[in-house]
Amino acid sequence: MSKVLIIGAGGVGGVVTHKCAQASDVFTHITLASRTLEKCKKIQQSVKELRGVDIDVATLDADDVEATTQYLKDLKPVLVINVALPYQDLPLMDACLAAGIDYMDTANYEPRDEAKFEYKWQWAYQDRYKDANLMALMGSGFDPGVTNVFCAYAQKHHFDEIHYVDIVDCNAGDHGKAFATNFNPEINLREVTQRGKYWEDGKWVETDPLEISQTFDFPEVGDRKAYLLYHEELESLVLHLKGLKRIRFWMTFGEEYIKHMTVLANVGMTRIDEVDYKGTKVVPMEFLKCLLPDPGSLAEGYKGKTSIGCIIEGMKDGKKKKIFIYNVCDHEECYREVRSQAVSYTTGVPAMIGAMMMLQKKWDQKGVVHMEQMDPDPFLEQLAKYGLPWHVKELPVD
Amino acid sequence: MSKVLIIGAGGVGGVVTHKCAQASDVFTHITLASRTLEKCKKIQQSVKELRGVDIDVATLDADDVEATTQYLKDLKPVLVINVALPYQDLPLMDACLAAGIDYMDTANYEPRDEAKFEYKWQWAYQDRYKDANLMALMGSGFDPGVTNVFCAYAQKHHFDEIHYVDIVDCNAGDHGKAFATNFNPEINLREVTQRGKYWEDGKWVETDPLEISQTFDFPEVGDRKAYLLYHEELESLVLHLKGLKRIRFWMTFGEEYIKHMTVLANVGMTRIDEVDYKGTKVVPMEFLKCLLPDPGSLAEGYKGKTSIGCIIEGMKDGKKKKIFIYNVCDHEECYREVRSQAVSYTTGVPAMIGAMMMLQKKWDQKGVVHMEQMDPDPFLEQLAKYGLPWHVKELPVD
Repeated sequence: MSKVLIIGAGGVGGVVTHKCAQASDVFTHITLASRTLEKCKKIQQSVKELRGVDIDVATLDADDVEATTQYLKDLKPVLVINVALPYQDLPLMDACLAAGIDYMDTANYEPRDEAKFEYKWQWAYQDRYKDANLMALMGSGFDPGVTNVFCAYAQKHHFDEIHYVDIVDCNAGDHGKAFATNFNPEINLREVTQRGKYWEDGKWVETDPLEISQTFDFPEVGDRKAYLLYHEELESLVLHLKGLKRIRFWMTFGEEYIKHMTVLANVGMTRIDEVDYKGTKVVPMEFLKCLLPDPGSLAEGYKGKTSIGCIIEGMKDGKKKKIFIYNVCDHEECYREVRSQAVSYTTGVPAMIGAMMMLQKKWDQKGVVHMEQMDPDPFLEQLAKYGLPWHVKELPVD
Repeated sequence: MSKVLIIGAGGVGGVVTHKCAQASDVFTHITLASRTLEKCKKIQQSVKELRGVDIDVATLDADDVEATTQYLKDLKPVLVINVALPYQDLPLMDACLAAGIDYMDTANYEPRDEAKFEYKWQWAYQDRYKDANLMALMGSGFDPGVTNVFCAYAQKHHFDEIHYVDIVDCNAGDHGKAFATNFNPEINLREVTQRGKYWEDGKWVETDPLEISQTFDFPEVGDRKAYLLYHEELESLVLHLKGLKRIRFWMTFGEEYIKHMTVLANVGMTRIDEVDYKGTKVVPMEFLKCLLPDPGSLAEGYKGKTSIGCIIEGMKDGKKKKIFIYNVCDHEECYREVRSQAVSYTTGVPAMIGAMMMLQKKWDQKGVVHMEQMDPDPFLEQLAKYGLPWHVKELPVD
């Protein structure tokens, strides 16, 4: 019997729960916990209706390490699947350590008061997890997550040496709103308003926010302008890819999205420090989140596709080679299947697959572990089976 | 001895105080009061430095009718010049009535919770002011204010009948900021985000916000695109101009300003209802005001000109006639003279002139009075003398 605890009942939490319920031979007992029980209950009901599977729900404050530890000791899951906010990665890693439970998440820890995407805080748990004979799997979403696995797959099957990687993320969907973000608005906006960064010739190169853009031909979508961003998987991939010369991350944004972001930054609405409002401290970015549509509410009627993958160039048998490994996901199909849009879907499915790998001991390494360090084959096999088919396309070498 | 009390120590309050100090033969004793004594003291110091005139300052909560009444009874000014927020028009009119003091303002009352520019609330004081033998002068700024007087002047000297009025307001200045408003941001944004409205053939016609635009040739500025807005002077002018067929109000906005406004409206930042933020009620528009630059801070380094006036068409001696009455004001010159930008200057100078008319009994009518009901000649004579020279240009009849 494999009991898992999913923490976080947002859009991704819903997908993970549905997906675990689909694989009920692996996930024999599922508990979904969140600060807000109502959100868990809605997902519980949807899983019952669509999958005929019963899950448990619970109220949990993930910031409260002591209470969470006690809860874990009582519940005794074999794994905590953390799909709460990135702020909560560290308290949850603490609680898992204290209770002796394996841990995984989909996004790296980030302090509340500065927009930093760095693994240093979670890497600091390396020895403690090893000593406790526990595994902590980092970033098992799509990007990070599947993109890391694509790189590992390329390294294992396609290249002797990988020189260039461009991770390209396109959401060509239309939610019909003037402006909305596709996942937690705060995290979304932080990502976009931070300075860009990529890695080349052994060092990091910084750019202004959205300073560099390039048009890519996205499978099943076509040409789209993408902007160079810093994204967390770059930090671990530069450590694990052999012979790497450059790695960059690109994301598409429409003109309207950029316009809204620019204005919101201009007026200070993306600030994450506290501003005095009639004697109350208000963080502009968090207040903005109160005004924007709940990403979950975008799912119904969301049209179009996401197209995300890795363009990888390197050497194979003494010759140059270039491939594009990617997945295309349709918003409407996601909604039909799990009542979610594709951005949540593409994050939630890999979270379930990562958990499956851990439960089945196909991935088993103690300490803090990145996706590309694990065998990509069993992961990718299940990924295709559970809704995210992936493809490899050979590209002409420049 | 003519003692006046100026209430409000924002950008306009500073200009009015400087201007009253320039006319110290009329304003023999000046007190400046505001909720924030610091702001009064800064103006006090600037008036002393630049004009060598001593004024008194005081702390006053204009929303507190009882305290204000008592203060007025103690101070015994002959006139209250209200340049506080429009929300405070009614409490101040109440206090003036109770203390038996004449009243004037520069903008009509507006309830805090809805963006309405209507005179009905202030018109409701008509009988009480008449019965108390007091005068309440409405809207003695530039627009409303000077624009009303321009219409009265046109009616008195240029037309037998006025058919069409277009009030056109252009600020061609550049404050160098990505986005800022030229006076109280809240009032500014409310004005722009409300539905447009104009008067034609005896009835009001509504438009979507910024739905209608037209290019005008602004004196000393050139062609600029202006947007049809509803503006408060329209409401009284339709009552007082003979034979009027249509009256509209137009204001220029740059593309960047419109872009910012559109985005802020899209995300809900211009809402004036309360939003729950972690248990605290926050009004988005008021929070935005905390983030935007203080309009007063824009004055230094503000370049360019304002060009505001009335394009009036009608009949004179049986023939069609069209004139443009206008003033052009230079931001840098205003800063040199009174440490203010032209938007505050063009509001503050007419406030002083209106007060002068009342103190000198050149304008003397009991009850609630609009500018166009008074003799325009003495007002316009002083207006030109105190920094806002005005011009009449004959235009070809279409």
